[in-house]
Amino acid sequence: MRDRSAALVVVGNEILSGKIRDSNAYFAALELRKNGVELKRIAVIPDDLDAIAEEVSYCAQRFDFVLTSGGVGPTHDDLTMEGVARAFKRRLVTHPELARLIRGYMGERANAASLKMAEVPEGATLHEAGDIRFPTVQIENVYVLPGIPQLFETKLLGLVPRFQADPYFMRAIYTRLNESALAEHLNATLENYPRLLLGSYPRIGDSEYRVKLTLESKDHEYLENAFKHLLDLLPRDTVVKVE
Amino acid sequence: MRDRSAALVVVGNEILSGKIRDSNAYFAALELRKNGVELKRIAVIPDDLDAIAEEVSYCAQRFDFVLTSGGVGPTHDDLTMEGVARAFKRRLVTHPELARLIRGYMGERANAASLKMAEVPEGATLHEAGDIRFPTVQIENVYVLPGIPQLFETKLLGLVPRFQADPYFMRAIYTRLNESALAEHLNATLENYPRLLLGSYPRIGDSEYRVKLTLESKDHEYLENAFKHLLDLLPRDTVVKVE
Repeated sequence: MRDRSAALVVVGNEILSGKIRDSNAYFAALELRKNGVELKRIAVIPDDLDAIAEEVSYCAQRFDFVLTSGGVGPTHDDLTMEGVARAFKRRLVTHPELARLIRGYMGERANAASLKMAEVPEGATLHEAGDIRFPTVQIENVYVLPGIPQLFETKLLGLVPRFQADPYFMRAIYTRLNESALAEHLNATLENYPRLLLGSYPRIGDSEYRVKLTLESKDHEYLENAFKHLLDLLPRDTVVKVE
Repeated sequence: MRDRSAALVVVGNEILSGKIRDSNAYFAALELRKNGVELKRIAVIPDDLDAIAEEVSYCAQRFDFVLTSGGVGPTHDDLTMEGVARAFKRRLVTHPELARLIRGYMGERANAASLKMAEVPEGATLHEAGDIRFPTVQIENVYVLPGIPQLFETKLLGLVPRFQADPYFMRAIYTRLNESALAEHLNATLENYPRLLLGSYPRIGDSEYRVKLTLESKDHEYLENAFKHLLDLLPRDTVVKVE
């Protein structure tokens, strides 16, 4: 089994203050899962150098790779590159290829602020980002993405093949039993299938079912056996449907 | 000025795996801001005891209060109470009042799983939660809320008066300038008004404006002066509207 773990660090006061509803975390969660990657942490932090450096350093040490979202423009509150540099104790330097791109794009309007977007931690590498002119910057296992959803999504889709792991298989059971009544059956199933990823999600106000159970594994046969085991434990008339 | 800082810890594999799109973080961000509270961190972590204990402990030490969302039901993956107990090095004990409520509600169906929901860190206190039967559990500066949005929202609205701080005032400027051209004016404004909260949010594909600037402060006069300062720096024909 090829496993891969990931973390997402969302940088932005606008998310924490409720001015903007983040959509990048949900997009990344779906996309990574689809590619067999286990997203183990999402952190939303302010436009603050120390907060960025601390969180990126924490995640880079614990997970196979880290995505950041936001804080990469030309203004005072765009601090992600400097924060990532600090996380790895590197200097911030002007990347000649990025400076060339910015000058080519902006011409005479290229000022100190726009050239700030060419500054990266020393030793960073660049990845082409599909139809987006500006490449994606990588430092160690950290990939720095912009916060604007259209750009974040395109860049993430361009990177995801690099991260690909073995896929998850999933089954679901919708039941009329409540969680308290289900608990013993779930526990019994986990005793027999300790590696099963088993989720229990109650739903309020649905007349059809009370709880959706999700069963997942990267081992297809293991999943099917666990699924059958749990299904056999549940009184037949309490199961509304399975997937 | 009465300032209050907060963090939100969202517990749940279902969010990290993209099965469910979290809405509690955005609701909390809006609601806390409205009440003058500075939300400084959102962390989404798995249903894992160590992860919960570590994150709750980190946040409880740094912020005035911490909200948790999710992981409070009767099944194997409901680990938030135990994680919070571990964060404060407390034992998990059965709260007689909660046990009484569960028995009253479930009657003969009350089993070991349902009574698990009466277990709280030793010394926890209870808060009435409006029209929700089940009170909200507080341990030190941590408030444990359920993940189901209807319940999370009702319980949060019940708690928010306890957290109230001085309100933020906000102004906004919509401009046709791009961020690179704006940067020098933003920096000049921040030099004169270093305590101003100044956000710069580019928008792609809007024909009316390129960047929305937000100016905020808890000091109304300070905000109005900073707003006037920045507005005077911008060429008049680049300002589309102000709020």
